[in-house]
Amino acid sequence: MAHYNLALIGFGNVGQAFARLLLRKKDMLSQEFGLTFTVTGIATGRHGAAIDPQGLDLEKALQIAQAGSSLDALSPQPAPRGGVDFIRRCPADVLFENSPVNHHTGQPAIDHLQAALEAGMHAITANKGPVVHGFKRLQEAAKKSGKRFMFESTVMDGAPIFSLFRETLPSAELIGFRGILNSCTNLILTRMETGESFDQSVAYAQSIGIAETDPSADVDGWDAAIKVAALSTVLMSAPLTPQEVDRQGIRNLTPQMLDEARRQGKRWKLVCSAQRNGKQIAGRVAPEMVPPDSPFYSINGTSSYVQFETDVLPGLGIVESDPGPETTAFGLLADFLNAVK
Amino acid sequence: MAHYNLALIGFGNVGQAFARLLLRKKDMLSQEFGLTFTVTGIATGRHGAAIDPQGLDLEKALQIAQAGSSLDALSPQPAPRGGVDFIRRCPADVLFENSPVNHHTGQPAIDHLQAALEAGMHAITANKGPVVHGFKRLQEAAKKSGKRFMFESTVMDGAPIFSLFRETLPSAELIGFRGILNSCTNLILTRMETGESFDQSVAYAQSIGIAETDPSADVDGWDAAIKVAALSTVLMSAPLTPQEVDRQGIRNLTPQMLDEARRQGKRWKLVCSAQRNGKQIAGRVAPEMVPPDSPFYSINGTSSYVQFETDVLPGLGIVESDPGPETTAFGLLADFLNAVK
Repeated sequence: MAHYNLALIGFGNVGQAFARLLLRKKDMLSQEFGLTFTVTGIATGRHGAAIDPQGLDLEKALQIAQAGSSLDALSPQPAPRGGVDFIRRCPADVLFENSPVNHHTGQPAIDHLQAALEAGMHAITANKGPVVHGFKRLQEAAKKSGKRFMFESTVMDGAPIFSLFRETLPSAELIGFRGILNSCTNLILTRMETGESFDQSVAYAQSIGIAETDPSADVDGWDAAIKVAALSTVLMSAPLTPQEVDRQGIRNLTPQMLDEARRQGKRWKLVCSAQRNGKQIAGRVAPEMVPPDSPFYSINGTSSYVQFETDVLPGLGIVESDPGPETTAFGLLADFLNAVK
Repeated sequence: MAHYNLALIGFGNVGQAFARLLLRKKDMLSQEFGLTFTVTGIATGRHGAAIDPQGLDLEKALQIAQAGSSLDALSPQPAPRGGVDFIRRCPADVLFENSPVNHHTGQPAIDHLQAALEAGMHAITANKGPVVHGFKRLQEAAKKSGKRFMFESTVMDGAPIFSLFRETLPSAELIGFRGILNSCTNLILTRMETGESFDQSVAYAQSIGIAETDPSADVDGWDAAIKVAALSTVLMSAPLTPQEVDRQGIRNLTPQMLDEARRQGKRWKLVCSAQRNGKQIAGRVAPEMVPPDSPFYSINGTSSYVQFETDVLPGLGIVESDPGPETTAFGLLADFLNAVK
């Protein structure tokens, strides 16, 4: 039986869903994977931090988080509130980094993940920033420490995308991809098709926690561009930046345009794509009108889709329906199990 | 650099596509996987057999097959024509079994694969019969010999289905699936939607090599039922037989019914499914009318689709578009690379 100490940075929706998933799968992990675990530390931005080498009570941590109280109460000694100090002090084999995304720099998540790798931990994240802004640096740190940097949950939540190529498509070469990768804009377009205005749709997306208070990162296509950059950086060995992606959001789609599409039996979708052209990769985010014969047509609400063109499989598509924090949490668990197997 | 001797049973469309893929990927396999190979034997039902411990000339074997001549000419000594004798005589590390499918017994492929495992080879097949009729026996033989029994190409050609669960979804529990898994009936329905009769559509499917001379295994839903049985046997630990699948083919779908669906903006699809209900698994193959909002609607021609419901991801779908012998060949290569990695 192998035992792992786990440290968590970030204990919001995803961090809590991951904690619940760990508790639910505990018996299965020991029976089928010969693996036990203890959470030795949790650090949050606003709700305190706790480190206990003997293991924190995860049920209690969840209750405290639900109540909006501080995790400080669980810590025998005061725990560092700063991420890197926390990582250096927390005795752990794996760090799960789920701090808020910084689209422009990937920080402080990159520093957290690097500190974890340098401290001999596997570094796992659901945060896109470090993949786009720190991939090379973190891959090198992982190689140096003999540990893994993994990030399955950064694109399409817990649906297997990176592990699909890594584990199931050996020797395949990715030529290009097309997909619907931003849940928020897809939900907004689906709501607008029912007659809601843009503002009403954004307000709805905000009310269910899909859109931020400032929705521009989604609406202007930045989140989609970051995902295009992440996929091309990792899967096409082409370190595209989000700024290099030809990007157009959904602000110019009027209710009249959506009506006209409906009259033609079509739908508008925010389509993400990248295509290899010699040594160049052209990345693009732009609205497209799609007919019912397109696999994009049936991807509605918060669902997402990507289709890959490779040298060995002309068309391989992945659909994720009804995602939530639980599906993102599963991506973290899958990374953990693949890192230690 | 690791070297592998490969033996091939069956050298039809899939076997030849696999040989071409091996030749095309040769340099990449040595550079990126540190792996070289020699094909030491090929046995066919009608075009002879050849064994050469020094390695057969694969280009020449392809030319002979294209010309419809006998492979005997390549063999320094006469090679056994019978499968099991061939396997015992051929010095190989991996057997690729691509003899024609026997839907009712899985033979002689089961005996071939078992003989290969007993001779210390990995046993890889694109043939569904052994998965449905010999899974337990072959798994046990693989365990005993410390080798692998692999069969990615048996469902949805080379699209990753079995490796998806094995490699990318650790700890996930499969609750049920729904899919379009038989290319032939899907192509027939797509053709009938354009106004062709059932017989015309079958004739077209036969002309491009998708339907057999006797199309009943496809048309009556047997091939679909076998795939339902294969998926539930392997992924749900529920050894369902094709006979236990509640099965209905497409013979009763009239042009009038397809017309009526079209008037409603819908399509008929032959839907395969299985659902866990306590310890029972209910498997089913039956035509369903699907609307454009269903992901099934855009799966046309020879494309296929399956969506999985698991305890951790509520909806994960896999689309395969434009398959051919090359995609099946890739599944064989992926199994090989995963078996020896």
